[in-house]
Amino acid sequence: MKKRVAIIGVTGAVGQEFVVSLKDHPWFEVTQIAASPRSAGKKYLEAIKDPNSGITNWQVGGNIPDYIKDMTVVSIDDLKIDELDLIFSSIETEEAKEIEARFAKDLPVVSTSSAFRYDEDVPMLIPGINDEQADLIDIQKKNRNWKGFVVPLPNCTTTGLAITMKPLYEKYGAKKVLMTSMQAISGGGRAPGVSAMDVTDNIIPYIPKEEKKVRIETAKILGKLKDGKIEPADIKVSCTCTRVPVIDGHTESVFVETSKPIDPKSAKESYEEYSKNISIAGLPSAPPDYFAVHEDPTRPQPRIEREVNNGMTTTVGRLEEEPLFDHGIKYMLFSHNKKMGSATGAVLLAEMLYKKGKI
Amino acid sequence: MKKRVAIIGVTGAVGQEFVVSLKDHPWFEVTQIAASPRSAGKKYLEAIKDPNSGITNWQVGGNIPDYIKDMTVVSIDDLKIDELDLIFSSIETEEAKEIEARFAKDLPVVSTSSAFRYDEDVPMLIPGINDEQADLIDIQKKNRNWKGFVVPLPNCTTTGLAITMKPLYEKYGAKKVLMTSMQAISGGGRAPGVSAMDVTDNIIPYIPKEEKKVRIETAKILGKLKDGKIEPADIKVSCTCTRVPVIDGHTESVFVETSKPIDPKSAKESYEEYSKNISIAGLPSAPPDYFAVHEDPTRPQPRIEREVNNGMTTTVGRLEEEPLFDHGIKYMLFSHNKKMGSATGAVLLAEMLYKKGKI
Amino acid sequence: MKKRVAIIGVTGAVGQEFVVSLKDHPWFEVTQIAASPRSAGKKYLEAIKDPNSGITNWQVGGNIPDYIKDMTVVSIDDLKIDELDLIFSSIETEEAKEIEARFAKDLPVVSTSSAFRYDEDVPMLIPGINDEQADLIDIQKKNRNWKGFVVPLPNCTTTGLAITMKPLYEKYGAKKVLMTSMQAISGGGRAPGVSAMDVTDNIIPYIPKEEKKVRIETAKILGKLKDGKIEPADIKVSCTCTRVPVIDGHTESVFVETSKPIDPKSAKESYEEYSKNISIAGLPSAPPDYFAVHEDPTRPQPRIEREVNNGMTTTVGRLEEEPLFDHGIKYMLFSHNKKMGSATGAVLLAEMLYKKGKI
Amino acid sequence: MKKRVAIIGVTGAVGQEFVVSLKDHPWFEVTQIAASPRSAGKKYLEAIKDPNSGITNWQVGGNIPDYIKDMTVVSIDDLKIDELDLIFSSIETEEAKEIEARFAKDLPVVSTSSAFRYDEDVPMLIPGINDEQADLIDIQKKNRNWKGFVVPLPNCTTTGLAITMKPLYEKYGAKKVLMTSMQAISGGGRAPGVSAMDVTDNIIPYIPKEEKKVRIETAKILGKLKDGKIEPADIKVSCTCTRVPVIDGHTESVFVETSKPIDPKSAKESYEEYSKNISIAGLPSAPPDYFAVHEDPTRPQPRIEREVNNGMTTTVGRLEEEPLFDHGIKYMLFSHNKKMGSATGAVLLAEMLYKKGKI
Repeated sequence: MKKRVAIIGVTGAVGQEFVVSLKDHPWFEVTQIAASPRSAGKKYLEAIKDPNSGITNWQVGGNIPDYIKDMTVVSIDDLKIDELDLIFSSIETEEAKEIEARFAKDLPVVSTSSAFRYDEDVPMLIPGINDEQADLIDIQKKNRNWKGFVVPLPNCTTTGLAITMKPLYEKYGAKKVLMTSMQAISGGGRAPGVSAMDVTDNIIPYIPKEEKKVRIETAKILGKLKDGKIEPADIKVSCTCTRVPVIDGHTESVFVETSKPIDPKSAKESYEEYSKNISIAGLPSAPPDYFAVHEDPTRPQPRIEREVNNGMTTTVGRLEEEPLFDHGIKYMLFSHNKKMGSATGAVLLAEMLYKKGKI
Repeated sequence: MKKRVAIIGVTGAVGQEFVVSLKDHPWFEVTQIAASPRSAGKKYLEAIKDPNSGITNWQVGGNIPDYIKDMTVVSIDDLKIDELDLIFSSIETEEAKEIEARFAKDLPVVSTSSAFRYDEDVPMLIPGINDEQADLIDIQKKNRNWKGFVVPLPNCTTTGLAITMKPLYEKYGAKKVLMTSMQAISGGGRAPGVSAMDVTDNIIPYIPKEEKKVRIETAKILGKLKDGKIEPADIKVSCTCTRVPVIDGHTESVFVETSKPIDPKSAKESYEEYSKNISIAGLPSAPPDYFAVHEDPTRPQPRIEREVNNGMTTTVGRLEEEPLFDHGIKYMLFSHNKKMGSATGAVLLAEMLYKKGKI
Repeated sequence: MKKRVAIIGVTGAVGQEFVVSLKDHPWFEVTQIAASPRSAGKKYLEAIKDPNSGITNWQVGGNIPDYIKDMTVVSIDDLKIDELDLIFSSIETEEAKEIEARFAKDLPVVSTSSAFRYDEDVPMLIPGINDEQADLIDIQKKNRNWKGFVVPLPNCTTTGLAITMKPLYEKYGAKKVLMTSMQAISGGGRAPGVSAMDVTDNIIPYIPKEEKKVRIETAKILGKLKDGKIEPADIKVSCTCTRVPVIDGHTESVFVETSKPIDPKSAKESYEEYSKNISIAGLPSAPPDYFAVHEDPTRPQPRIEREVNNGMTTTVGRLEEEPLFDHGIKYMLFSHNKKMGSATGAVLLAEMLYKKGKI
Repeated sequence: MKKRVAIIGVTGAVGQEFVVSLKDHPWFEVTQIAASPRSAGKKYLEAIKDPNSGITNWQVGGNIPDYIKDMTVVSIDDLKIDELDLIFSSIETEEAKEIEARFAKDLPVVSTSSAFRYDEDVPMLIPGINDEQADLIDIQKKNRNWKGFVVPLPNCTTTGLAITMKPLYEKYGAKKVLMTSMQAISGGGRAPGVSAMDVTDNIIPYIPKEEKKVRIETAKILGKLKDGKIEPADIKVSCTCTRVPVIDGHTESVFVETSKPIDPKSAKESYEEYSKNISIAGLPSAPPDYFAVHEDPTRPQPRIEREVNNGMTTTVGRLEEEPLFDHGIKYMLFSHNKKMGSATGAVLLAEMLYKKGKI
């Protein structure tokens, strides 16, 4: 018997990614879908049509999966909670505060919004990186007197940094991390999203609130669950986040000061070892390689990496010594903001929680 | 009486920028132009035509200046040296070693190539930044027993970093500089230059040899001329250089550890003060503002900045404290690689040398 | 004494182009500026700031002209009509219906909106193409009992087609015109305008309402004023309008069946002759060349042509016989949608009307 | 027993597409691979490395298939012909004249080059469109006294036009076809291919020789095999071919004068009917839909369509009456130049020939 899941915010860009990520899923079956009252009562195919132009607003590559076309979208308030085992939420942060909390009283909610990320009793999980923080869920349930819970993903720019820092932080310590991101257009949403007049042949050197999110989230994710609380990692992160004319996939240039001696070869080995022993191996949405580490200095390139393993592999390249620090290394990373950093990552997270018996 | 100048490598992309930068120049008059034997004997307009397609290969915006159209291109060996006062060279580095040295026996040579940049008795000059290093020219002439001399510009990625570091280095010291560049396509040349298949919707995370150039050149430019030698500045630079889908103008994200306390406000004032007292004020190719410092966090943007003051102003934005260092600051800069970082910068350099009586 | 002009809709993208086009104008002086109540009472520099982000929303290349920075924006209702000689309007079509009519009671209104384009007593003027239709203004004034009048520009996609068809239509007749446009992003406006997710690495094969506009407008512009009415030209136009990833400037591929024999050489001569005898020669905003006709088959190219003569020259290339018709020709054209096709074209239009004594 | 095939030109961009298209093929097995002497003797992975930079020059999306990595590339002269059943050739046209003829003495050669396209006894085949012309192969073999034969694909711009004209031509006749193409960057090759400086934010209005190819090839493909010869179709084609900043997939805007009455609805039905009865149904590389016809006017869009059915479906949109002709229609089409128009199309062609017993 598959778990019965609902997608809320199913008509938006991230909701559509959920639709694709859950197609033919071996463990989860989409049995209900919900969106704003404007879409309620319509079949999915109808609901994603622009009412004025009649144009189908399908924002994900490839075709719309058949399974969803004729499903009827309901208003979020009309979901039948007792016929569900799990909710995937991609609604806006402001609404999420209230709505996700309401559902979490009864059900597990895996969310891409930032509404609960910084709450003390909420773990912000990246499958394969901080699975053990999932135990905070039990405390959350107790604290809030909920039968369900809320687990958010981090911001998609944090995802790549936290993933690539994890093996280094564990083995070498990481005192300082200085990062410059070159983020994809799709990270800015789509209706209307980033204006072509702003980003074509251009760089926008600022993404509101992004840098603060990366700083706080990285430390929380790499932290330790101790005495029912997450103690943030002892890692100082500074970053400058920019938007570049790239459609999908975030690239980040990272300089790290480590506590212990490090060199490119041993760093590469750390990634490969981590990849080999990855906790989520074999889960339905897990990539065959958690990390891809390139010695070819022209990698990572977003147009190439985004196709690799359905965007679920994190790519590292340009691993070089950083002589400005006593011990240090520099590298570039690629992380797919619409896949590992978003809905598909959320599905992988749910798979991990399911395996752990949390769902 | 205007100084009589020759442009060598006049048919290439940088040569064409020289043609535009010297149009109606009040002090310099282009009296001879030279290129490879293939072009020799042709009128300029003919020489820049593709022999197969008959297509005019004019690579600079706007129209071809009238003054150059009917000038006859000669072979480099056929320049009449005794009818010249100055040479602008944009030939390839490998040829430049021999050719520029040959001309420097008799004439000042201002060059965009890297052939002589790292020679001990050759100053690498950015007008407004290290004008006083021009005195090394006298030593160079003596050393080499030349009547003329060679003065190169730095690499166009160095230009923006060295210019923006200068006021900071002088006032606050600069122990560590960690920079990530997002460089324009035009920096990769044009025949064929960067392939559209490589850079469209993509980032190329590596530019061969670029990072080493930036490290060495920045220290030399910010150094001091002492006892007939340039003592490199005590500044450690690390950088990662990338190519992005932007046509003109390099953007750089910079993190700096300074020796003394610094904050965004005082940094901004330093730039403004430096700009107000700039050495090259009033020279024909000098911009009205040497620096433009923005508080608007969405600046610099290459598509906007490149139009400002004909690409001769260096833009600074996102000045913020860098709390990872005891004292530190971070910022983003824009420098136009085809203007201040190339031919127009070379013309401005020649103007500065002329004023100093070196030409 | 310069004519006192107001710009209404001065904070928008087209309004900003007006600001630039009227800088240091020898005949017109901007004495009042107006926008929506939200901007009223603010200095211009303040008015174009985003209230949330504090970001200056200047959408035109280069710097904001000094003359406008401290001018106070008033509400459109608060313009002092008796202190004005002329109004440039770039307000939205829906508002324009009422507002432009209101002002036209007293003043000449030159508009980029489509509100009045299709009215029988309103000429849709392209300076240099159908200047003689300006006489319809007198009938309009009489009809409507106005002291002023409204004169709109055509749609920016019509502009290039009508301009390039004019010399052909006059000399060879034009029975059928089949056109495919490749239109620039900037034609889609800017707040938010075309989404980068839609147009990057993509073509949007449809622009709502555009094709109908081009069909109707081209016939009206090339028509004859006769007995107080414009008789549309006997020219059948069909077109497919697309949006491509080009920032500024529309490119159109045109196939024409003419009534009389035509060949590329004589077509080229027709353009050159027309250009030489252009009615608007010498007007302050007129380009030195009305047409640029290239034999080089790689022209027109938007990134090159848009820089030529401040975007006021219309470029024709690829003139070839069209053997599918008894008599026919095919060509490609470039017309700058933000310059000749918008505010700067409107200023040139006002100059022409001024010379004619209509203003 | 699978057919043993060789890929010649295996290191180039099209060769790499063959490598991917033949991965896990149920009928064909790549047993030999060949390229220029420079690559001979190297393992494939080594052969596609840039000798200077050490960079792997893999030009196709996704990963390099495992099966090819360790295969040794041989010189074309060293292929073992008697151990082969079929050759896929993607070598340059000039070499192809001699080399493909040499192999065709013994083996079937399916080629993407233009070397033999215009020979009287050579059919230029698009699987699903003119399969019956395959019978010309027997005449070719007899004529030339070959045991094998050569069959080329048409030019990739012809492919989309010929495919979409076929159902119309059959049912309504097609007197005149006026087409404007907007072709992808990848069509210009890759080493170096189209320069980013040329095509970014730009349109190149000319592709040498392309238009003539489209004219001649379309008539040949739609022609009839009669008395051992192909009688070209009675269809007049005119076109203007341009290059736009789109990575993969050609878009074409088409105006057609038909002999018989036509309307969008019946045209759509013709495509759907053709698709339903498509000759190549069920072949391993055949798409589930030969045509996708959209009523949504915002389709086709290259970034969407290229993902549909692995680029093997041809998309038609904007079907509208063309009132300029007595009977006529206009539409836009999308055809993937690297898939249906290149190597994958060639594999599909080989599958069709295999089914027919020609291989």
